[in-house]
Amino acid sequence: MDRASQLSDRQNSCLMVIFGATGDLANRKLFPALYSLFRDGVLPEHFAVVGVARREKAPEEFRRDVWEAVRRYSRFEAGDETWRDFSGRFYYLRSDLREPGTYGRLKGLLGELDERHGVPGNRIYYLAVAPEHFSPIVENLAAAGLAVIRQGSRGEGSRGAAESGDGRESEQGSHLPGWQRLVIEKPFGHDLASAESLNRQIRAVFDEEQIFRIDHYLGKEMTQNIMVIRFANAFFEPVWNRRFIESIQITSSETGGVEDRGNYYEKAGALRDMVQNHMLQLLTMIAMEPPSSLQTEAIRDEKVKVLRSLKPMDPEEIRKNVVRGQYGAGAIKGQKVAGYRQEPKVGPASDTETFVAMKLFVENFRWAGVPFYVRTGKRLPVKATEIVVQFKSLPEILYFKEYGKLAPNLLVFRVSPQEGLFVRLNTKKPGTEDFIAPVAMDFCQKCEAEANSPEAYERLLFDVMRGDSTLFTRWDEVALAWNFVDPMARVWAEGAPAFPNYAAGSWGPEEQARLFEAGGGWWPVYGQEGAEKVLG
Amino acid sequence: MDRASQLSDRQNSCLMVIFGATGDLANRKLFPALYSLFRDGVLPEHFAVVGVARREKAPEEFRRDVWEAVRRYSRFEAGDETWRDFSGRFYYLRSDLREPGTYGRLKGLLGELDERHGVPGNRIYYLAVAPEHFSPIVENLAAAGLAVIRQGSRGEGSRGAAESGDGRESEQGSHLPGWQRLVIEKPFGHDLASAESLNRQIRAVFDEEQIFRIDHYLGKEMTQNIMVIRFANAFFEPVWNRRFIESIQITSSETGGVEDRGNYYEKAGALRDMVQNHMLQLLTMIAMEPPSSLQTEAIRDEKVKVLRSLKPMDPEEIRKNVVRGQYGAGAIKGQKVAGYRQEPKVGPASDTETFVAMKLFVENFRWAGVPFYVRTGKRLPVKATEIVVQFKSLPEILYFKEYGKLAPNLLVFRVSPQEGLFVRLNTKKPGTEDFIAPVAMDFCQKCEAEANSPEAYERLLFDVMRGDSTLFTRWDEVALAWNFVDPMARVWAEGAPAFPNYAAGSWGPEEQARLFEAGGGWWPVYGQEGAEKVLG
Repeated sequence: MDRASQLSDRQNSCLMVIFGATGDLANRKLFPALYSLFRDGVLPEHFAVVGVARREKAPEEFRRDVWEAVRRYSRFEAGDETWRDFSGRFYYLRSDLREPGTYGRLKGLLGELDERHGVPGNRIYYLAVAPEHFSPIVENLAAAGLAVIRQGSRGEGSRGAAESGDGRESEQGSHLPGWQRLVIEKPFGHDLASAESLNRQIRAVFDEEQIFRIDHYLGKEMTQNIMVIRFANAFFEPVWNRRFIESIQITSSETGGVEDRGNYYEKAGALRDMVQNHMLQLLTMIAMEPPSSLQTEAIRDEKVKVLRSLKPMDPEEIRKNVVRGQYGAGAIKGQKVAGYRQEPKVGPASDTETFVAMKLFVENFRWAGVPFYVRTGKRLPVKATEIVVQFKSLPEILYFKEYGKLAPNLLVFRVSPQEGLFVRLNTKKPGTEDFIAPVAMDFCQKCEAEANSPEAYERLLFDVMRGDSTLFTRWDEVALAWNFVDPMARVWAEGAPAFPNYAAGSWGPEEQARLFEAGGGWWPVYGQEGAEKVLG
Repeated sequence: MDRASQLSDRQNSCLMVIFGATGDLANRKLFPALYSLFRDGVLPEHFAVVGVARREKAPEEFRRDVWEAVRRYSRFEAGDETWRDFSGRFYYLRSDLREPGTYGRLKGLLGELDERHGVPGNRIYYLAVAPEHFSPIVENLAAAGLAVIRQGSRGEGSRGAAESGDGRESEQGSHLPGWQRLVIEKPFGHDLASAESLNRQIRAVFDEEQIFRIDHYLGKEMTQNIMVIRFANAFFEPVWNRRFIESIQITSSETGGVEDRGNYYEKAGALRDMVQNHMLQLLTMIAMEPPSSLQTEAIRDEKVKVLRSLKPMDPEEIRKNVVRGQYGAGAIKGQKVAGYRQEPKVGPASDTETFVAMKLFVENFRWAGVPFYVRTGKRLPVKATEIVVQFKSLPEILYFKEYGKLAPNLLVFRVSPQEGLFVRLNTKKPGTEDFIAPVAMDFCQKCEAEANSPEAYERLLFDVMRGDSTLFTRWDEVALAWNFVDPMARVWAEGAPAFPNYAAGSWGPEEQARLFEAGGGWWPVYGQEGAEKVLG
């Protein structure tokens, strides 16, 4: 992470083109994040945004939309006297993304804005659009001279970034004034083959160093904190291995259903929508070796090593160690909700999974034999992302002999909505007898509503502007992750269990019990019934 | 610790004779502790107390004194309808402790009370008196047939307790109906020779298993919790050694001065009053190896091993590694207070130390090379007993390289007045930059005023009644502790520094800085100015 680069530098002055500027992501995440960065004083002084979308919209209307988005979703209150300065940086271009003429007009507008805002040609192209638009936009950008077609594109699967060493811009950008960066949202392909194809198309225009593949879980405060906690504390490093750790559980549960994303979700499912990216990224952060430095590529190299160490599963192992589910009708917090097959834009006999739980192994010296349990699902009772590191029990002597099975030590990373670290210890209960009870120690960065912790997108946009791609997914990470989940999708294609197999508002199908040894199971997440018992 | 024994059993029915029943200890600690045990329902059903003291006092007057003591010092509110039941168990015997006739009268009274309260002859003799009375009382008890003179007393220094295996009563008690136990307060001698002499006199009458040498620091909840935390949590055992621990600091600071204890303190000083017993006991709990079981003698054996491993210091090392101080006039919390030499019953040119700080080493495989810093003193700015385990810093790479010297991890046992565990970690500060800051995680058993944690004496009296001497000091512990501090007293006898050398309300003499490497020093204790900074 290059800390020297200040966004106030001319080097970071830029125009950001948001394709899909009327969409959900732009409104819920990008505009509020830009506003927060602005309020925190870290936006470049020379900076403007061009929203591109199909709808007809006057510039003032677009700015009103931005205002509305900030008002609704920002962690800062909008509306002070700085609003004029902020909103004055927003422009709108109505266009059909597939129509080449669009890009000529965009080029003209960007040139004007360079002048007006004092930007030296630097561009961020943010693809906040459906994945079918990714390739056409990239091709059109190149065709219009907004990015440069590379002479010979490298073989896909090559470690483009690693080759250039420090993750800084290669000579590629020098064909145009300034730099160009491409920000691309998930899904990056649908399987390894389609991801390779997409990557080939993008890499024909952009170098790996110019590509910022968003995985917004990497922008979350606590995800970044995993590395700090592991590598800046003498406590944890000595016990962070298979000798002391019994198992690791990674949960990302949602209460929401598929909502209006049925079109997309029917093709994705939980495996592609969550496991291939977010869940495996969290796993790499927990499991990685200490990198040789904090340089972008040093860190990514270690994450790739984890992904390479994932123990492949044959079809039989997949049937045994991976459980999928689809929610039926049920209730969330007392509210009746429909089953997945009854959701809009979902097939009435859909076999798409809305829940995945699996047991997997990282086959290296640090983790051999330690099960990693991963689960994610929609319409679960609680919304929470947590990582639970369960330590091995001590020998069953002394207090363990005297007081029966003592609770194991847990170290819990609360990623969201709470952000903090939680430790479960055994201590003596006050009193004249020696009863032992678990107690909780925690530090909480963002508990309940009072905190004002930055949103993931703030950090990620900030990093795009300063050209730091540490918290973005490198191509080989994407490829290895597809490589791991593709066999599961192939086994599943042979036929689904009798869906729905869990009720909305439950913790998923009962079959997941088979992932655990007798007596094992998921630790409750924060907010779950029974969690207080574990929390001591 | 024999958990099967219930105090409601006839086996535990007993009469408790408190010698010194009008004194400070009885009023401030023993009566309130007995009342708490009573309120908690753990006093034996068949139980009574005989207070013995010189003052003339009607039984009702004594009970009013007990009432007053409970009202003032108990953690329960006195005065409910149970008071009659409780106070009906208190009797008073006026007597001169040195007059043999006293003990005949005591014998008669105890016989009566056995009948009245259904006690089968079991006795606890509690010596809450000045040390010069210890031997005469023991001799007189034996002479009056209240305890039995042993035929051949074992050589002092022998491991009486260990010989009988499980720490239960030996056959010794069988000469009288029921059992007899002797509870003896500090100081147990003034140096090794006088302690041996005292022990010889006591052991002529009582077996080691019958002797309960009080060190009330062992009765404190958090002292007991040290073992639980160390041996019931997988987190700590792997890092609990010289490879991961940089140093350990043990502080017991008092704000009070010598008050009306000048007579005693002039002969004792901080070394004998605090270090020989409390401080070294805390050290054994922190440093001991895991015992082979939770049996009394298994635990004491491990504590003895630590005391045996204390690296002896020659006079030169003592002059270098041990610092003493005496307070002069100053101010505590804004209140002017007198210097030690101006206190009542203190010599105007006294060379008694009121402060000791030392660096010592435990020479065994676990701790070789790890400095233990121990300090205690009167008239310091804050009253606190704490143990700080400081972990070694990680290699100066990654975050350490990037962000300069990061704070080391600390694990703090707060023994009193707060009772809890506190951990200092480094984490990422929320925000778009990667600043790292220490944060605190803690669990607090007794914070501020709201908690109602048992007093040390409750646990200790309870243990005497059930015959569990785990939390009392075995003779060889006492002897080894004297053996460690005696050379210091001898070096000091050659002459004192220019006392007073610290002002009341300061943290002791400046010379203590020489105990630490450059840049090192004492971690602030809870409540100390600057502590918040460390606490993150």
